[in-house]
Amino acid sequence: MLRWITAGESHGPALVAVLDGLPSGVAVTTGDVAVELARRRLGYGRGARMKFEQDVVELTGGVRHGVTMGGPVAVRVGNTEWPKWEQVMSADPVDADVLAELARNSPLTRPRPGHADLAGMQKYDVDDARPVLERASARETASRVALGTVARAFLRQALGVEIVSHVVGIGAVTAPAGVVPRPADAAAVDESPVRCLDAAAGAAMVEEIDRTRKDGDTLGGVVEVLAYGLPPGVGSFTHGDRRLDARLAAALMGIQAIKGVEVGDGFELARIRGSLAHDEIVNDGGVLRRVSGRSGGTEGGMTTGEVLRVRAAMKPISTVPRALRTVDTETGEAAVAINQRSDVCAVPAAGVVAEAMVALVLAEAVLDKFGGDSVAETRRNADAYAARLVERGL
Amino acid sequence: MLRWITAGESHGPALVAVLDGLPSGVAVTTGDVAVELARRRLGYGRGARMKFEQDVVELTGGVRHGVTMGGPVAVRVGNTEWPKWEQVMSADPVDADVLAELARNSPLTRPRPGHADLAGMQKYDVDDARPVLERASARETASRVALGTVARAFLRQALGVEIVSHVVGIGAVTAPAGVVPRPADAAAVDESPVRCLDAAAGAAMVEEIDRTRKDGDTLGGVVEVLAYGLPPGVGSFTHGDRRLDARLAAALMGIQAIKGVEVGDGFELARIRGSLAHDEIVNDGGVLRRVSGRSGGTEGGMTTGEVLRVRAAMKPISTVPRALRTVDTETGEAAVAINQRSDVCAVPAAGVVAEAMVALVLAEAVLDKFGGDSVAETRRNADAYAARLVERGL
Amino acid sequence: MLRWITAGESHGPALVAVLDGLPSGVAVTTGDVAVELARRRLGYGRGARMKFEQDVVELTGGVRHGVTMGGPVAVRVGNTEWPKWEQVMSADPVDADVLAELARNSPLTRPRPGHADLAGMQKYDVDDARPVLERASARETASRVALGTVARAFLRQALGVEIVSHVVGIGAVTAPAGVVPRPADAAAVDESPVRCLDAAAGAAMVEEIDRTRKDGDTLGGVVEVLAYGLPPGVGSFTHGDRRLDARLAAALMGIQAIKGVEVGDGFELARIRGSLAHDEIVNDGGVLRRVSGRSGGTEGGMTTGEVLRVRAAMKPISTVPRALRTVDTETGEAAVAINQRSDVCAVPAAGVVAEAMVALVLAEAVLDKFGGDSVAETRRNADAYAARLVERGL
Amino acid sequence: MLRWITAGESHGPALVAVLDGLPSGVAVTTGDVAVELARRRLGYGRGARMKFEQDVVELTGGVRHGVTMGGPVAVRVGNTEWPKWEQVMSADPVDADVLAELARNSPLTRPRPGHADLAGMQKYDVDDARPVLERASARETASRVALGTVARAFLRQALGVEIVSHVVGIGAVTAPAGVVPRPADAAAVDESPVRCLDAAAGAAMVEEIDRTRKDGDTLGGVVEVLAYGLPPGVGSFTHGDRRLDARLAAALMGIQAIKGVEVGDGFELARIRGSLAHDEIVNDGGVLRRVSGRSGGTEGGMTTGEVLRVRAAMKPISTVPRALRTVDTETGEAAVAINQRSDVCAVPAAGVVAEAMVALVLAEAVLDKFGGDSVAETRRNADAYAARLVERGL
Repeated sequence: MLRWITAGESHGPALVAVLDGLPSGVAVTTGDVAVELARRRLGYGRGARMKFEQDVVELTGGVRHGVTMGGPVAVRVGNTEWPKWEQVMSADPVDADVLAELARNSPLTRPRPGHADLAGMQKYDVDDARPVLERASARETASRVALGTVARAFLRQALGVEIVSHVVGIGAVTAPAGVVPRPADAAAVDESPVRCLDAAAGAAMVEEIDRTRKDGDTLGGVVEVLAYGLPPGVGSFTHGDRRLDARLAAALMGIQAIKGVEVGDGFELARIRGSLAHDEIVNDGGVLRRVSGRSGGTEGGMTTGEVLRVRAAMKPISTVPRALRTVDTETGEAAVAINQRSDVCAVPAAGVVAEAMVALVLAEAVLDKFGGDSVAETRRNADAYAARLVERGL
Repeated sequence: MLRWITAGESHGPALVAVLDGLPSGVAVTTGDVAVELARRRLGYGRGARMKFEQDVVELTGGVRHGVTMGGPVAVRVGNTEWPKWEQVMSADPVDADVLAELARNSPLTRPRPGHADLAGMQKYDVDDARPVLERASARETASRVALGTVARAFLRQALGVEIVSHVVGIGAVTAPAGVVPRPADAAAVDESPVRCLDAAAGAAMVEEIDRTRKDGDTLGGVVEVLAYGLPPGVGSFTHGDRRLDARLAAALMGIQAIKGVEVGDGFELARIRGSLAHDEIVNDGGVLRRVSGRSGGTEGGMTTGEVLRVRAAMKPISTVPRALRTVDTETGEAAVAINQRSDVCAVPAAGVVAEAMVALVLAEAVLDKFGGDSVAETRRNADAYAARLVERGL
Repeated sequence: MLRWITAGESHGPALVAVLDGLPSGVAVTTGDVAVELARRRLGYGRGARMKFEQDVVELTGGVRHGVTMGGPVAVRVGNTEWPKWEQVMSADPVDADVLAELARNSPLTRPRPGHADLAGMQKYDVDDARPVLERASARETASRVALGTVARAFLRQALGVEIVSHVVGIGAVTAPAGVVPRPADAAAVDESPVRCLDAAAGAAMVEEIDRTRKDGDTLGGVVEVLAYGLPPGVGSFTHGDRRLDARLAAALMGIQAIKGVEVGDGFELARIRGSLAHDEIVNDGGVLRRVSGRSGGTEGGMTTGEVLRVRAAMKPISTVPRALRTVDTETGEAAVAINQRSDVCAVPAAGVVAEAMVALVLAEAVLDKFGGDSVAETRRNADAYAARLVERGL
Repeated sequence: MLRWITAGESHGPALVAVLDGLPSGVAVTTGDVAVELARRRLGYGRGARMKFEQDVVELTGGVRHGVTMGGPVAVRVGNTEWPKWEQVMSADPVDADVLAELARNSPLTRPRPGHADLAGMQKYDVDDARPVLERASARETASRVALGTVARAFLRQALGVEIVSHVVGIGAVTAPAGVVPRPADAAAVDESPVRCLDAAAGAAMVEEIDRTRKDGDTLGGVVEVLAYGLPPGVGSFTHGDRRLDARLAAALMGIQAIKGVEVGDGFELARIRGSLAHDEIVNDGGVLRRVSGRSGGTEGGMTTGEVLRVRAAMKPISTVPRALRTVDTETGEAAVAINQRSDVCAVPAAGVVAEAMVALVLAEAVLDKFGGDSVAETRRNADAYAARLVERGL
C-alpha cells in the first residue's frame, strides 16, 4: 500500500511531503527532485514570484546514499522568502503590537471568486482568508512534484515506465490533435515556453498570453500526460474504486484549478459511434496489440499495455488582475476581490504537476499488482508476469 | 467514515452491496430501492434483457421497520434469470459432462475491444473471458443504485438535499446548453425516453438511436447530475484527496464506460478568460451568493452552497453488433469479437447510476463535516452550522 | 489491497460478508465454509440456540466452479430461524397492530452491563436496545468465519500456511504452558469439547463450565492462534500501522468480548529480563533460525519465519443468568438486566473466530508484500523471494 | 477523517510527522510539543543519549499564531547530533573513500535477536542492518509524541478530555493494583523517576533497574493510560474495525517493543466469572453510571462515559549489553549481536508514547462521531449530544 501526504503553507517555512510504502533500492537524489521542481517553476505567463523564489530541497528521511531504504520518504521544500513572512506566518503567537504594524498581516476579507477563500472561511470558521489561501495556494503542488519524482524513479527502475506531458490548449488556442510527445521528446517540450510540442501552436499560445496580460486577464488550458511502458492489467474492473481511471481522475481533479479530466479521447468518445470508438485487437507477431489508442490505454479500469493517455482541464487563474466583484466579509459591502499574485497562466506548470500525480497513482497501482519491498523484487515479479503473458500467447 | 462495497456477477444468483457508516434513523424501504432500480432499467436503446429482467430487492441488513439502525445496510438484488445460469455460474464445482453440454458454458475467447475482456484475462490469468465480463458488466451498477437510494434518503432527511440528473448528449446530438432540471423536474426527465429535459433534443436523440440500431452500431453520450441544497464547506482544499471534486471525479470515472468527467463548465472553462470564468460574489440581503454557476458549485474542492453540477462522458457500448476485429486467444487467429448483448445506448441509465455515485460521495463528505450517528444528530449539527453562518453574516 | 466487510443482524434473514481483493484461482466451496461454520458452533457451554440453528451458506459472488474469479467474494449465511423473526426484524414497516401482539417485539429497555446495549442506545439515539444487540451480537462472527475460510484457503494454496487454534484457559482453569498444537493436531483439538489440546485440562474446563452453569453464572477464557509456514518479512516496522502485530491486535481485539491480546509470550515478557526474553539466532545448516519462540514469530512488526503465535482474552458472557443490576431506561428505575441467551461459555468458538481474523490479516499482509492477481502469481512471487533468501544465505 | 504519518531516521537530520484532518482553532505551540518531548526523554534507566540529545521542534505547517488553521499540522523534530552523522546518513551519495574511513558507516551484520534487524534485512533486501534499525528505532516515537500533543490539545479544548499514564510494572516489580492517577496527579507521576504513582513501588523499580544494569541486562514493563471526560458512544460495535478497543489495540501494539495490550482488567477478566466481571448500571441522580470500572470504559467497542483505561506490555530492550547469540550475515558464522545503545529500561517513556497514541485514536474517533471543522464546531456538536442524553434521561 502506497500512500502520500503533503503539508505546509505557501508562505510558511517549508512544504513537507511524505511518501510511505515505496520499496527500498530506488535511486533518487535531492538533485533529481530539484530538477523536477525547477520544471514546475517554468512556463510563460508566470509572475515575478517564480523568478526569485527558490526551492530548497532536503530529503529528510527514507533515502541514504542515493537509494531509498524502504521507510517513508520525506521531502522538505524550503521557502527562501520565509524571512519576510516569519512573523505573519509564525506558528507561535506573535506580539499583537508587532503584528499590527505589518501590512502583510492585515486580515484578507475580500474573497476571490473562483478561489477557496469564501467557502474556506465559512467551513473553518475564520474571519481572515489568510489561513485558507495559504494552504489552498498552488504552491502546495511543489510538494506533490517532489514526491512524484520519487514515484517516477521507482516506475522507471522497476518497470521501465516513462511519463511525459505537454500542453494541448491555452485558452482558445489548441495544439494539433494527435500529436503526442514520446519520452525522447520530453526535453523538446520543456524547451517550449508553454510546454507545447507543436512550435506554431506554442507561438500562438505565447501571443495569447501576451494579449491576455495586456487585458489584465488570466487564462486556463488543457494538459495531457502520457505513460509509456506499462504492462497490461494494472488497475482492476472488480470494484469502482479499484479502476485505474477512477484513481487517475481523482488524482488529476484533486490538483488546484482542475475542472475536467479525460482518459484517452474522453468526451470525444461520447460523440462518435461504437464502431469508431474502440481499439481493435490484432496479433502482431505473437503479441496482441491495439490498432489505435482511443481508449487512452485503459479498458475496464485496467491498463491495456498501450500508451496511457489522460488530460486535465485547468480553469483560468482566479486571481484576476482586472479584479472580480465580491463582498467584504467584514462589512458585508460590495468590494473588489483581493489580488495576491500576478500570473496570467499556469498551465505549463500544471502539466508537470499532473505528471507527478499520474506517477504517484501508477506507482500505487503497480505495487498493488506486483508487490515488492525492494525495487529488485518488484521488477522480478513484473518480469515473471511478462514472461507468463508471453507463455500464454497474450 | 462512510464506505461501501459491491459484489456479485452479472449472471450470478444476486448482486450484493453494503453501505457501512450511515447513521441510524434514515427512513428507507425495499420499495424505495426498487423504484430506483426500475429507473436504472429505463431508457430508449436498451435490449431485450432489460425488459424481462426483474430486480428482486431484499434489504438484508441494517434496516428495521423502515428505518436504518446504524449498522451496515446490506442490499441484495436477486437475478430472476438465475435458474438459466445455475450451472454455468455455479459457485461449487459442476460435473464436467454436464458443463460440456451447455453452450452457455463454452469459454469466451474473442475479447471485445473496449471491454475489460482481454486485459482481465491477462491480469487474472484466466483463459476464458467469462470470469471477467461477469463482474465487469454494467449490471453491477444495479448494486450501486441500490446503495445510492439509501445515501440520497440520508441526504434528503438530514440536509434537504435533492439530486437529479439528465442526459445532455447522445452521440452527436446535444441538449441546449444551460437548461438544467430542478428537483421538481425529476419526473419529467424520467418520462423522456432518453431522460432528456428538452423535448426536441430528446426526440432527436431517439431518432439517432434508431438510426444507429439500424446500422448495427452503438452510442455513448453525456449525463449531468445536479445536487440542490448543499451547505457551503463540504469537502476541503487542505489535501488533494479531500477535495470534493476529486472524490466526485473518482466516483463518476469509476462507473463502467465513463471516460471523461467535468465539474461545472469543465473543459469549457479552460477555453475562456478568467474575467468570464468565475462566479462573482454578491450580498443578497444578508446572504452571500454567486451570480452564476460556472464552477459547478465547488471552489477549492468545497461546496459553495450553490447548485452542484457535474458531468460524465460515456463511450459507446463496446459490444458492437457490427462486431469489431479481435484475436481468438485460444488460437491466436484473427476473429470477430464476442457479441453478448444488444443494447444500442445505455446513456439514460448512466444518469441514474451517476446520481447514485454522487449521492454516495456527498453522504460521505457530509458525514466527514457534520458527523452524527443518527439522522437527527447530523441534522442538528448541520442546522447549528447554518445558524453560525447566519450569525457571521456569511 | 485486501478489505472485508460484514453486515446483517442476529435475527435478520441472513448475514452477509464480502472479501474484496483476493486473487483469482483460490479453490474454495460452500462446503469448506460450512465446515468452518460448524466448527464455530461447537464447544461445551453453548446454549440451545447453537443446536437448532443451522447456517445456510451461499457463495453469492466471486467464486465459479470452485475457484475464485478475482472479484469480491460474497458469502451469505442464512438464518433458519428467520420465519420466527420475520415481522419483528422486517426491513419494511409492519402494521403496528401486528407488532403490538408480538412479545418478541417489545422494546428492550434493561441494558445489560458488559454488553453494547446502553452505550449503543445512547450513541444511535434509540429507545430500544433491539437495534443495538441485533448487530452487536456474536452471531456476526459467523460472517467473519465465512470470510476467514476463503482467506486461509488462499494462504494455504499460495504459501502453504496452516492456521490452528486452541483454548489455553477457561475461567481460572488453564492448559499447561508451552503445549501448542501443530497443524496435524487440529482435528484432535476440535474433538475436545472445549477445544483444549491437553486432555486433563480440557476435562477440568468442562467441570468448571458445569459448576458455573449450576451457579447461574458465565465464563470467559483465553485462546491461542498459531500460523505455520509464514516466510520472514511479512508486515513492516516502517510505520506503526504497518506492523503486523498492530494489525493482528486490532483484528483480535475487534472480536466481540475480547479485552486483551498478546503476541508471543506477551505480558510475561514484560516481567522477565532481556537476556531471557529474546530468541537467539543460529545458523542451522545454512538457514538462520531462532532457538526459541518467545516473540511469537514477529520482530519489528514483521514475521521472522518462525511460528506465529497470538492470544486473545475473552471476558465472561455478559448475559448472566443470575442477572446483573441495571436501570430500566424507560422508567429510570433500578431493574435486572435482560437475559437473551443462555450460553455459559463461548471460548471454544472464539478460537475459531480468532483463526479467521488471523487468516484475514495474514492474507492482507501477504498480498501487500507479494502482490498477485492469481494464486499462481502470488505463489510465484513468494517462491522467488524464498529463493532469493537462500541465495543470500539468510 | 483524521490520519497521521511519521517519517525520518534515528540519526537523520530530523523526524517529520503530519497530522491531517484536525479542525481549525486548536491552540497549540512549539513549547507544548517540546514539553511532551521532554517527558518522553525522562525516566530512570535511560542511557547517555537521552541526556545530550535535544529535540529541536518546528511546527512546519498547519499552525499560525498559536492556533491550528484546519490544514495538515506538520512537526519537525530536529536531531542535534546530525553533524556527527551527516555523511553516514546522507541522503545523497557520498564519496566511497570518505565513507570507507568512517567507522560509523561500517555495515552492521550481526542482527540483534528481538529487534527488526534480521527480518528487515531479509524483507528489504539489504546487507547492512543500518537502513533497518535507523527507522525501526524507538527514536521514531518522538514524532508520535509530537503529534499526540496536538491531538490531546484538541481533545481537551473540544471535550475537556484529559489523558494520563503511569507505570504499573517494571520487570517483576508491580505497582499496587487499583491505584490509578487522576488528571491532577499527572505532575506527581512525572516526578517519579520511573513514572510510578506509588512511591514504594517506584523505589523498588529503581532498585530493580540498578540491579539489572549491574548484571548487564535489560527490563520491560507495563504502562497504563487513562482518559477522563469522554462521552459515551465514541467508537462503534457495528463493525470489527470500528470498535474503539480494536483501534486502541492497534495503536498501542504498533509501538516499538509492545507485545501485549489490555482494555480494563483485560486478561484478568478471562479468569473470573460473569457475575463479577461486568460493571453494573445504576441511576445516580438522573445520570446512568457504572458502579465499577472493570471494562476499562468500553462496552461493545464504544466508550461508556466512564474512565477509559488501557494497558500495554513492553518487552525488555532487545539491545542487551550482555549480548545475545546471533549469526554474522556476511560470514554465516556465529557471533554476538551488535550493541547500539545502553538503556536498561524505557518503560517510563513508553507511557508517554502510549498517551500520544491513545490521544490520536481518541481524536480520530471523536471526529468520526461529532465531525467539525473548527474546535468550536466539534464542541458545539458534542455539547448538543450531551444535552440530548440529558433530555433522554440517559
